[in-house]
Amino acid sequence: MKIAVFGTGTVGDTIGSKLIELGHTVMMGSRTAGNEKAKQFVDKHNGKGLAGTFADAAVFGEVIFNCTAGIGSLNALKIAGDKNINGKVIVDIANPLDFSKGMPPILTVANTSSLGEEIQKTFPHTRVVKALNTMWCKLMVDPAMINGGDHSTFICGNETAAKQEVREFLKSFGWKESNIFDLGDITSARGLEMYLPLWIRVWGATNNGAFNIKIVR
Amino acid sequence: MKIAVFGTGTVGDTIGSKLIELGHTVMMGSRTAGNEKAKQFVDKHNGKGLAGTFADAAVFGEVIFNCTAGIGSLNALKIAGDKNINGKVIVDIANPLDFSKGMPPILTVANTSSLGEEIQKTFPHTRVVKALNTMWCKLMVDPAMINGGDHSTFICGNETAAKQEVREFLKSFGWKESNIFDLGDITSARGLEMYLPLWIRVWGATNNGAFNIKIVR
Repeated sequence: MKIAVFGTGTVGDTIGSKLIELGHTVMMGSRTAGNEKAKQFVDKHNGKGLAGTFADAAVFGEVIFNCTAGIGSLNALKIAGDKNINGKVIVDIANPLDFSKGMPPILTVANTSSLGEEIQKTFPHTRVVKALNTMWCKLMVDPAMINGGDHSTFICGNETAAKQEVREFLKSFGWKESNIFDLGDITSARGLEMYLPLWIRVWGATNNGAFNIKIVR
Repeated sequence: MKIAVFGTGTVGDTIGSKLIELGHTVMMGSRTAGNEKAKQFVDKHNGKGLAGTFADAAVFGEVIFNCTAGIGSLNALKIAGDKNINGKVIVDIANPLDFSKGMPPILTVANTSSLGEEIQKTFPHTRVVKALNTMWCKLMVDPAMINGGDHSTFICGNETAAKQEVREFLKSFGWKESNIFDLGDITSARGLEMYLPLWIRVWGATNNGAFNIKIVR
């Protein structure tokens, strides 16, 4: 599949590289076509990794993974252009964290809305699915790294077909079907994003991002 | 030990009853001395359960479990009176949830503060430890109910000795030492309270409060 990955940071590189490993072709989108990190991504993937502007990537991708810093996600999608993203599934991995006041970061939107909802509201013809934002990026694409792969991941969004598509991506990343929790519509992104302050504290207490939560019953 | 439990709801009754089962004497505090639910608590515990105003309970208790609805916690402690609570450990189990706008509730304080912090700030001579607020009350006192008791619980607070005291309570409730995560100072209450929106969504998706998260690494 042809996939757009928005964002040239560690998350974008990790997701994009995994997608390529799985046989997809990935265009990494960024603000400027000549982005250094996007070039490195292209160089290491021998033709399976491409780079372009957000608009280029959006045109290219059948699906868009939003791996930008949450604080810039809406703007990245605006730059990409309505006509290039409409109708497409946006897998929103971003967290709306503001580090400008130091650590710990605060959420720029919370409680009565969420980044996932803001994206869906701002671009009503896209099909937003919140996913994978609750963990370190290495675990997103390699759940087997801890606890034999037995821990939880969540999806939410307004459209069942879009969620099913994302579920298949997650399974291809190694997630067990029984560990993928569908939390309902996109308003559940509030819960998934507001979990981040707890994630940050557990990370601070354990000094290691290689952890996740498992829902036990 | 003589313990004050603030709040006559299910959480207060559950915590109070468990403390009595463990050999403690408990006074349930409420706004009015004649509270109906507090009377029922007294009636069923044959002399080990007492009832009184918040002030009565605060005077009685060597430790205070705050099991009030979070939206009323600061007021309950104000009514109890500074001189009656100063120097005491307050185990803050409450969540600052506002249900007045319907479901899902919103947090009345989040992101840049938390109920735990507000209590500590408002009553600087108390020793606040946030604990147990991340789960259904039956699990708080009976972790073995699910997954062989193997799941996670958290504490945070500014004072090590106070946290140690609460840790001992948790162990007496059945929590394994290795599953009790100390997240640092009371500002971590933000993470613990902001987790609630995720809890509520998982509860909505599973239709059963008998779940918790386990940190896996």
